[in-house]
Amino acid sequence: MKGWAMVRFVDVPNMRRWLIDTGIESAISGIADTLVEDFLRWPEFDKTARVASHSDIGVIELMPASDGRQYGFKYVNGHPSNPARGLQTVTAFGVLADVDSGYPTLWTEMTILTALRTAATSAMVARVLAPAGATTMAMVGTGSQSEFQALGFRALLGIDRLRVWDTDPEALDVFEANMRPLGFEIVRAESAAEAVQGAQIITVCTADKTNATVLTDDMVGPGVHVNAIGGDCPGKTELDARILLRSDIFVEYPPQTRIEGEIQQLDPEHPVTELWQVLRGDAAGRTSAEQITIFDSVGFAIEDFSALRYLDAAVEGTDYYTEVDIIAEPEDPKNLFALVAQGAAAPSLA
Amino acid sequence: MKGWAMVRFVDVPNMRRWLIDTGIESAISGIADTLVEDFLRWPEFDKTARVASHSDIGVIELMPASDGRQYGFKYVNGHPSNPARGLQTVTAFGVLADVDSGYPTLWTEMTILTALRTAATSAMVARVLAPAGATTMAMVGTGSQSEFQALGFRALLGIDRLRVWDTDPEALDVFEANMRPLGFEIVRAESAAEAVQGAQIITVCTADKTNATVLTDDMVGPGVHVNAIGGDCPGKTELDARILLRSDIFVEYPPQTRIEGEIQQLDPEHPVTELWQVLRGDAAGRTSAEQITIFDSVGFAIEDFSALRYLDAAVEGTDYYTEVDIIAEPEDPKNLFALVAQGAAAPSLA
Repeated sequence: MKGWAMVRFVDVPNMRRWLIDTGIESAISGIADTLVEDFLRWPEFDKTARVASHSDIGVIELMPASDGRQYGFKYVNGHPSNPARGLQTVTAFGVLADVDSGYPTLWTEMTILTALRTAATSAMVARVLAPAGATTMAMVGTGSQSEFQALGFRALLGIDRLRVWDTDPEALDVFEANMRPLGFEIVRAESAAEAVQGAQIITVCTADKTNATVLTDDMVGPGVHVNAIGGDCPGKTELDARILLRSDIFVEYPPQTRIEGEIQQLDPEHPVTELWQVLRGDAAGRTSAEQITIFDSVGFAIEDFSALRYLDAAVEGTDYYTEVDIIAEPEDPKNLFALVAQGAAAPSLA
Repeated sequence: MKGWAMVRFVDVPNMRRWLIDTGIESAISGIADTLVEDFLRWPEFDKTARVASHSDIGVIELMPASDGRQYGFKYVNGHPSNPARGLQTVTAFGVLADVDSGYPTLWTEMTILTALRTAATSAMVARVLAPAGATTMAMVGTGSQSEFQALGFRALLGIDRLRVWDTDPEALDVFEANMRPLGFEIVRAESAAEAVQGAQIITVCTADKTNATVLTDDMVGPGVHVNAIGGDCPGKTELDARILLRSDIFVEYPPQTRIEGEIQQLDPEHPVTELWQVLRGDAAGRTSAEQITIFDSVGFAIEDFSALRYLDAAVEGTDYYTEVDIIAEPEDPKNLFALVAQGAAAPSLA
């Protein structure tokens, strides 16, 4: 009627088709560019720590963010025991809305998009913090995120040598089968300690919902950049605290990372650097070849906002979305009842 | 593939069709029954005050709640200047999810459903608090909510005499045109003060985003029940504080109502009664014929949860919904990449 009422809807088949046609590395690069734009204007955002609803076996979260023109949020669950019954650990969907009208404009699958944005964030951060000339990445944990991480690091940093390890040999088999055809040089290690040898970048991403020590203190030598993805909720960490104490730690949004990240193990006053300040040149990133840098990644709502914004622009004018009618739109905006008046009857007729 | 991946989707045409076929009063009664069930088990719910993102001209909110088995949330905006440009003040959509898996199960339009749940809540509360034998309701403000309120009070309390007033004569015209055919006795007053004369129940619902005094102290006599709907965000109230001071005040969820309700005008320690305790018989409701009772309604997430739960059960096994594919579902839950592997290429092919 006024053209406002229809919301763009990207379902799983359309997301797949868009991503396959676009190319995963190209999509990750595009999201990384949008992330940089949004990190550079970080203070403009309305920021909220995610809103979590915990149960015995998992968590459901809402992650909103707004730049004052657009509002976005992601629904995402985390259920570590899901794969054992054929379900995924993490599923997600996202919404964009127009701040001026308050009307939603985009609804999209976001399980795949989250994998892209997480890889884009990790690689975008590593481009700033990893030692110059890095060629080799260790990957400890080769679950659902791992292939996207590898492609992200190749797209943004040219990394094509991978040293991989997982407690689950099947996860390693799947990773190798997926990635060998894509031109990577892959070394399958026998342990996390073997995987990290000679790597300039260490990506840690396991799914244990416990305080684990996936990286012990002796595994991390000088000059390394650690991309710590898996420690992302209270009680779930992957790094020996001693590594943290001799490293420079970079975070997305301190109020959230203090609760959810690796630094939940440290004093709440332990110094950390906000990444947006590094990108703007207001804070130092890597300052020496020997320094250990850690990206204590937990995933922040602005990253989802960037991914939604990128996708929305990418599908504009294409057939990668359909339109759904989710906004009731009476002719007279003050007369909502008119839409359903047929559902009311005089007592004698009822 | 496993049947988990499809989400029920109730769009606007299906919501309209369902509501017209069900009947508005019947739907409001059904939601009211579900509300009572959920208020009686109030302590079981995971409760969060709504998460609001404010801009200069409006607000976008997320309202989550969970009973440990199901999780629900509503997206809702509030933009008082929208009608002037042909848009609605409030639009909404809602989601239900399964706590055990974390997977969403229902996505629905919720602008219409919110009008139903707000009317159901008001009438369900008035059934407990209004003076015995009430026959007449004053309605101050006859906007989008008003017809649903009137039908809710008829369905649950048998109220069929309405005394109405609005600052906007057009809003009164619309209300009268909608409601006269439905068997109500309607008196169109010349002022709020005239409207409230002889009414046992006063429903106040205006859309001003200011601290207004829609009801002045002299308008509210002994024995009245005030259904105060419109004061529902910081800086937006409708009642003279002196009315509050000589009334018993009933609220949904005090931490939210203290910020958003009429009682934002009072001392933060001012006594209020939680409605769930009244319904359970743990706290007194109306105790005398002279008492003034006020439902300081702001709308709480559990009410949306109840409405979503009622709708989900009501459409089960019908054709009032379609299914949408919003959950990426790889054959191997740990191999998300397999879904989009065609989007990755070896460098030589890229």
